[in-house]
Amino acid sequence: MFDNTEQQTFNFRTDLASERRDIYQKANNLENEIDGIESTKEEIDENIKVERVKITNENGEKAIGKPIGSYITIDIKKLKIAQEDEIQKASETLSNELKKVIDSHIDKQGEILVVGLGNIYVTPDSLGPKVINEIEVTRHIINYLPQYIEEGTRMVSAISPGVLGTTGIETVEILKGIVDNINPKLVIVIDALASRSIERISSTVQLSDTGIVPGAGVGNTRSEISEKTLGIPVVAIGIPTVVETAVLVNDSLDLFITKLQEDAKSNDYLNQLKEQDNYNEIKEALLPGDFNLIVTPKEIDDLIENMSEVVSKGINMSM
Amino acid sequence: MFDNTEQQTFNFRTDLASERRDIYQKANNLENEIDGIESTKEEIDENIKVERVKITNENGEKAIGKPIGSYITIDIKKLKIAQEDEIQKASETLSNELKKVIDSHIDKQGEILVVGLGNIYVTPDSLGPKVINEIEVTRHIINYLPQYIEEGTRMVSAISPGVLGTTGIETVEILKGIVDNINPKLVIVIDALASRSIERISSTVQLSDTGIVPGAGVGNTRSEISEKTLGIPVVAIGIPTVVETAVLVNDSLDLFITKLQEDAKSNDYLNQLKEQDNYNEIKEALLPGDFNLIVTPKEIDDLIENMSEVVSKGINMSM
Amino acid sequence: MFDNTEQQTFNFRTDLASERRDIYQKANNLENEIDGIESTKEEIDENIKVERVKITNENGEKAIGKPIGSYITIDIKKLKIAQEDEIQKASETLSNELKKVIDSHIDKQGEILVVGLGNIYVTPDSLGPKVINEIEVTRHIINYLPQYIEEGTRMVSAISPGVLGTTGIETVEILKGIVDNINPKLVIVIDALASRSIERISSTVQLSDTGIVPGAGVGNTRSEISEKTLGIPVVAIGIPTVVETAVLVNDSLDLFITKLQEDAKSNDYLNQLKEQDNYNEIKEALLPGDFNLIVTPKEIDDLIENMSEVVSKGINMSM
Amino acid sequence: MFDNTEQQTFNFRTDLASERRDIYQKANNLENEIDGIESTKEEIDENIKVERVKITNENGEKAIGKPIGSYITIDIKKLKIAQEDEIQKASETLSNELKKVIDSHIDKQGEILVVGLGNIYVTPDSLGPKVINEIEVTRHIINYLPQYIEEGTRMVSAISPGVLGTTGIETVEILKGIVDNINPKLVIVIDALASRSIERISSTVQLSDTGIVPGAGVGNTRSEISEKTLGIPVVAIGIPTVVETAVLVNDSLDLFITKLQEDAKSNDYLNQLKEQDNYNEIKEALLPGDFNLIVTPKEIDDLIENMSEVVSKGINMSM
Repeated sequence: MFDNTEQQTFNFRTDLASERRDIYQKANNLENEIDGIESTKEEIDENIKVERVKITNENGEKAIGKPIGSYITIDIKKLKIAQEDEIQKASETLSNELKKVIDSHIDKQGEILVVGLGNIYVTPDSLGPKVINEIEVTRHIINYLPQYIEEGTRMVSAISPGVLGTTGIETVEILKGIVDNINPKLVIVIDALASRSIERISSTVQLSDTGIVPGAGVGNTRSEISEKTLGIPVVAIGIPTVVETAVLVNDSLDLFITKLQEDAKSNDYLNQLKEQDNYNEIKEALLPGDFNLIVTPKEIDDLIENMSEVVSKGINMSM
Repeated sequence: MFDNTEQQTFNFRTDLASERRDIYQKANNLENEIDGIESTKEEIDENIKVERVKITNENGEKAIGKPIGSYITIDIKKLKIAQEDEIQKASETLSNELKKVIDSHIDKQGEILVVGLGNIYVTPDSLGPKVINEIEVTRHIINYLPQYIEEGTRMVSAISPGVLGTTGIETVEILKGIVDNINPKLVIVIDALASRSIERISSTVQLSDTGIVPGAGVGNTRSEISEKTLGIPVVAIGIPTVVETAVLVNDSLDLFITKLQEDAKSNDYLNQLKEQDNYNEIKEALLPGDFNLIVTPKEIDDLIENMSEVVSKGINMSM
Repeated sequence: MFDNTEQQTFNFRTDLASERRDIYQKANNLENEIDGIESTKEEIDENIKVERVKITNENGEKAIGKPIGSYITIDIKKLKIAQEDEIQKASETLSNELKKVIDSHIDKQGEILVVGLGNIYVTPDSLGPKVINEIEVTRHIINYLPQYIEEGTRMVSAISPGVLGTTGIETVEILKGIVDNINPKLVIVIDALASRSIERISSTVQLSDTGIVPGAGVGNTRSEISEKTLGIPVVAIGIPTVVETAVLVNDSLDLFITKLQEDAKSNDYLNQLKEQDNYNEIKEALLPGDFNLIVTPKEIDDLIENMSEVVSKGINMSM
Repeated sequence: MFDNTEQQTFNFRTDLASERRDIYQKANNLENEIDGIESTKEEIDENIKVERVKITNENGEKAIGKPIGSYITIDIKKLKIAQEDEIQKASETLSNELKKVIDSHIDKQGEILVVGLGNIYVTPDSLGPKVINEIEVTRHIINYLPQYIEEGTRMVSAISPGVLGTTGIETVEILKGIVDNINPKLVIVIDALASRSIERISSTVQLSDTGIVPGAGVGNTRSEISEKTLGIPVVAIGIPTVVETAVLVNDSLDLFITKLQEDAKSNDYLNQLKEQDNYNEIKEALLPGDFNLIVTPKEIDDLIENMSEVVSKGINMSM
């Protein structure tokens, strides 16, 4: 399910906590970290980078318009041609981050329900269901065949609830019913996202412990999937797999003007166009012709296959 | 999910109400209908036959070991090569029977939840999930966009909950949670079954209003999906798509001995073998070598495609 | 296989004969049809339009840089949500045009080989192989079971040869071998194309009798599939399913500037930008960051399904 | 494509050279190896066994009704639940055997064409096309980008030509055309087979250098794919994935009678039934009811996935 969790208090054209912090700092000429926001960066290898942002108080919340919690971005370059060892490395990176987030909320044996949002029949939206198929569930073994499993193993279950368009039921209603009935201690939600930048498509994993709003990005007001609605912590793993044409054009326009500037072919008006965010104007220009297509890279089948391996292995290793 | 709902009070080698009635009548030399059992047969066309059995009292229940309720068997010949018009005819037949069963339990606007059991990644078990993808759900439209739908339209939702092996959760636990949360008035469950006879594979639709026990056939004691566990009527649509080798061999042995008899090559011992049910002995002979495979016709992809069209159209037309 | 057959004599940013003619006429201030080019337009219904361009002599060839032959463009709006009757209408339109093209080259019984280019595992490139699976082949029936088929039926065979990246063999080498061995009289080639305009993605069928060059659009110099290489007429059915980001941006930039003009926010420099083709500059601006992605609409699965039904039915009805 | 290459000179109910030799030896009370037949057995580990049979002269040919050549059977137990290391082990075993067979026919740089027979849309027949998708082809790299590949690398190409029912063309006609056009030195053909024994289904790889006859098993007389028809050596890799019900019943009947004998419930007539091959009689008994189904294990999706990994890795490592 393609979604965006952004709440646009300041005019952020991104839902990544790290990017919002950068914009806020620049706009306010801050040199130091904002009060209420802590962050670290780490370069795992030449293709994998991690950035962790923690919002610790209300001031941080207000500054970048996101609730108190952890926000981790893992960048993976060249995923579509990744080989086995690179996928393994990315999985381990995700696993390490995920483990820390889980451990900050529940104990080692706390039961976890893994939820894969999305539609198996729509390739760029099939990540969630594909990951679910690879999760090593233990709940039924512990319940029915405890002799076959090490004592102290964490109970893990997994579900792919489908999308509103084919079920007719809000995802949160389905999950609320299941959570109330089987009582896990934490939920992990995996979802395909709409990217807010040309750079992020199918190369970024976004991890946070503040939940998710399915379909919010396309103008719907769906009930969020979060501790508020489910009553237990919700860790979200989001992967941008699609992007609006207006986003592509807005980002590309900047690159194009930069090129014109380099060639000394730009002018004041263009320089100013580059400084401002033209997303809304571009979108308005595209809409009448039905041209604001939501698109995905043509290699989406391979990307989804590799990314679902990264995510499922990452989750399995963390538990 | 492959299941069998049979409770073997009498030694019935079938879970079809109609076949059990025949066996009971023959074993007891009855010429007339059993008290507590009513039935009718109808030939829709040369390829489609319907048999309806109604168990109306405790005597009927005891006689054939099945609870009070409606049991309808629709036979569809040559499904794997069926053309569009034959599939349409079969859908209409299913729709007519289903409508009567639904109407006997809820009113015209009573909300229905359609549940597709099974595993999308296991071809002979993928019928349920595939049907769900084609159900015309209305619940979200009625809730969010009532202006786009005729007033008085029945609320329909649909879910494919996955199988215990990949979710770790009993299907009935998932459904109980959802039913309690969204409150439909009736559930329709679609499931792939293990056939009890060589004749039934992928050519029969079994309809009943007494629920279903997923996985029962393979020796598990799963909680049943029925009015008892969900609190609302459960209409089951079961389609045999797999069969144990022991069932194939038992049925074929009878045919083989019949042939030997015709050729005057049989003898008393063989004649007696034919009279008795050798399923258990054959199974015991096959088990040591791991030869009691569960098998499915090699054309299973086409069969599932055609059958899921029959079932999804049949359900959509009935609502 | 994504390809482009354009030879950029004049700076045409399209490979559609009809669009090239428009550009040529405008650039040369011609009011009448160019000598050597004939064309007609037809509106089949509100969603389907047909434009037929015939290049009849060398002057026409030179004017728009395409060889003598027939070029037909069928536009189908709203294909991704098309219902059965709209798909049927589109198929019939394709069938009518195709029949005329075939009849202009071979007689009613002339054997035809249908070739589906592309890769079944890459969704936006899977159209060719999917169409092949639905072609009603007759060659083997006529050869082995002539009693089951009406006398005078045309021999039809079909093949999906794979792509260079997975076979290691040029498609034309594979086809040359088969054509020489089974001797059809005409080849129909189906291929997914890279679109040259934001308007054409997944809504256009391009029909021509002058062959095709697989992979040409991505800078490769593959041997063309045409009468020159195969020795028999080659009818190409091309469907744009992907588009370069630079094409999207170039087209969108025009729309964006038009909007700025309407809002009286444009200026001379921008007006001039709009007049010229900025494709190459945009591409150069995008390349360093690896941002000139080739993308496809997120609904590509449904588009391919509907389009392959249109094309396979269209071909089957024409033969 | 399901096929059987057996030529029933003696009444062999198997097409495995090793089993035929056993039957011949038993029938003729031979204690030593037959003149013209050499064989070795090797146990790779507890799950994998290899048996190599070489027919070296006409006497060997006549004895077991198979042409001079190498026949290797690799048995892999528990393939459907095989883990990564077991699949690796099986691949290596296949690779070692295949390398020896290839080396006995062509030199280290001799070009090879790998051919995957079968239908991607029919799960039990999809092995060939799936393997082809994983073959590491080099032919186009050596031709177009020799700088990216080690000098002396063998040219490898691969094709999945489809099945007669969807192409209308005999597979050998397609291959003949391609072989004549690209001139490889050896062909490797992968095909799904009909098993002649309950023990072999989806657990055996059969390797031989004497070619293959697609579809022969179902009563068709297709042109064989062999050195005789293609002019170059043909190594066949066959994997039984389906089985006739009559074969299952025939094998099971023996096991059933053995069980009756153990329970002292058998008699002379049954003992005699067990001694003889009842396949034809059983088939005749099943045919009138259309019950001689061709079936496949219900886990066929997993089996095909694991087996295609074994075969593709085995081939890639051998080249």
